[in-house]
Amino acid sequence: MRIIRYDDAGTARWGVIEAGGTVRAAAGDPYTALVPGDPVGGDVRLLAPVTPSKILCVGRNYADHAAEFGNPVPKEPLIFLKPPSSIAGPGDAVVYPSLSGRLDPEAELVVVIGRAGRRIRPEDAMSVVFGYTIGNDVTARDIQKSDPQWTRGKGFDTFCPLGPWVDTGFDPSDVRVTCTVNGELRQDGRTRDFIFGIPELIAYVSAFSTLEPGDVIMTGTPPGVRPVQPGDTMTVAVEGLGELSNPVVAEEP
Amino acid sequence: MRIIRYDDAGTARWGVIEAGGTVRAAAGDPYTALVPGDPVGGDVRLLAPVTPSKILCVGRNYADHAAEFGNPVPKEPLIFLKPPSSIAGPGDAVVYPSLSGRLDPEAELVVVIGRAGRRIRPEDAMSVVFGYTIGNDVTARDIQKSDPQWTRGKGFDTFCPLGPWVDTGFDPSDVRVTCTVNGELRQDGRTRDFIFGIPELIAYVSAFSTLEPGDVIMTGTPPGVRPVQPGDTMTVAVEGLGELSNPVVAEEP
Repeated sequence: MRIIRYDDAGTARWGVIEAGGTVRAAAGDPYTALVPGDPVGGDVRLLAPVTPSKILCVGRNYADHAAEFGNPVPKEPLIFLKPPSSIAGPGDAVVYPSLSGRLDPEAELVVVIGRAGRRIRPEDAMSVVFGYTIGNDVTARDIQKSDPQWTRGKGFDTFCPLGPWVDTGFDPSDVRVTCTVNGELRQDGRTRDFIFGIPELIAYVSAFSTLEPGDVIMTGTPPGVRPVQPGDTMTVAVEGLGELSNPVVAEEP
Repeated sequence: MRIIRYDDAGTARWGVIEAGGTVRAAAGDPYTALVPGDPVGGDVRLLAPVTPSKILCVGRNYADHAAEFGNPVPKEPLIFLKPPSSIAGPGDAVVYPSLSGRLDPEAELVVVIGRAGRRIRPEDAMSVVFGYTIGNDVTARDIQKSDPQWTRGKGFDTFCPLGPWVDTGFDPSDVRVTCTVNGELRQDGRTRDFIFGIPELIAYVSAFSTLEPGDVIMTGTPPGVRPVQPGDTMTVAVEGLGELSNPVVAEEP
């Protein structure tokens, strides 16, 4: 099932989207029971399909991406947080901050948690996974490098596009993850090249922090990162899951 | 007014606490309108008095604390995030993780945001402040130092005690901030020694991130940081605001 959130005259609602594109309103909560109902007519504006209490991110989880910035392959997952205020929906503008001179998209497969858990063993980890979505870990690279912590460089409003849906039946074990900019392929990798697999990531983060339903783990980005400019359109694709496109716009003075 | 959240037979409710200690239930939302009602009888278990969408923290905001770890005085605020899952209430146990060999309390004055805002100028910043509470930025110092980012070292469950209340009439400009452990004074500073004042911090963080009602900014910690052990009780006091005490317990195997 593909679960969405959509804008209903200013109210965010849960829904499902069928293979043919039909959107149905849905009652209930996706993490307990979601009951699809009537089709929704007209143009539907999709929102980010999750409302996480925390966005856990993994740095350098593809060996060749670590190498492209001259970083060693990490011995443990490198974890950082993006604030919920950084979330953007499918199609939403990503704002290029006037404080930055280099903005990079980072294509990512995103794990969505469905059940609360702490100190989860790798062999039990898949039982807390609800599904998968697509993410773009937008980064102000210059600020990431000059600040002692990555909070600002990774945390500006709109720096976390997520969507277009959460697929609860998706198999993430060996799929292609790409980022194209204005149709030009840039990042290109496969999830089988993760340094740390999804069970290991869930075990690692739940060793320090309780995972809540709706929380997301962004699994890191493949090589090929290059900057974008206002006017560009970034498209992150995960094979078999879908595409997430967002235009880049300059910040208003 | 001093605003609390308390446990009502398993449900978290808003309330107010009067100077004599009387707790009253309150209707509504603190950031729009909170209406105190009848007194609550019996023992009242206080919860953390905020439910932030993000916990923004400032590192090294007292010059003498920066010096005690050999760090230069920063030219800009050093911002990091703690996850909401790290929040603990007044009196709650702080769990000493088995993964860590050094746990430090950090006494902090905490700003509570009452109005959403972005790109707020320092001269307008106080208009988005709702009130103040007390925080303990508990830190697994060894993990903070060995990890590339501070997420884990600062982010374990229970590493963010907050409370006991939010005081909406408090003047934070020159008050003493202390941490005592088992009654022994350790950290001791005054808010007049902030490197970056509250208006500057609000302007800085809102330059990248929209502040939401209930969000908190932890303003950094004074010098005197020393480790604690299971069995210790940490008490953070802010002069004129109150005290926040939490016992340290070892993690269960």
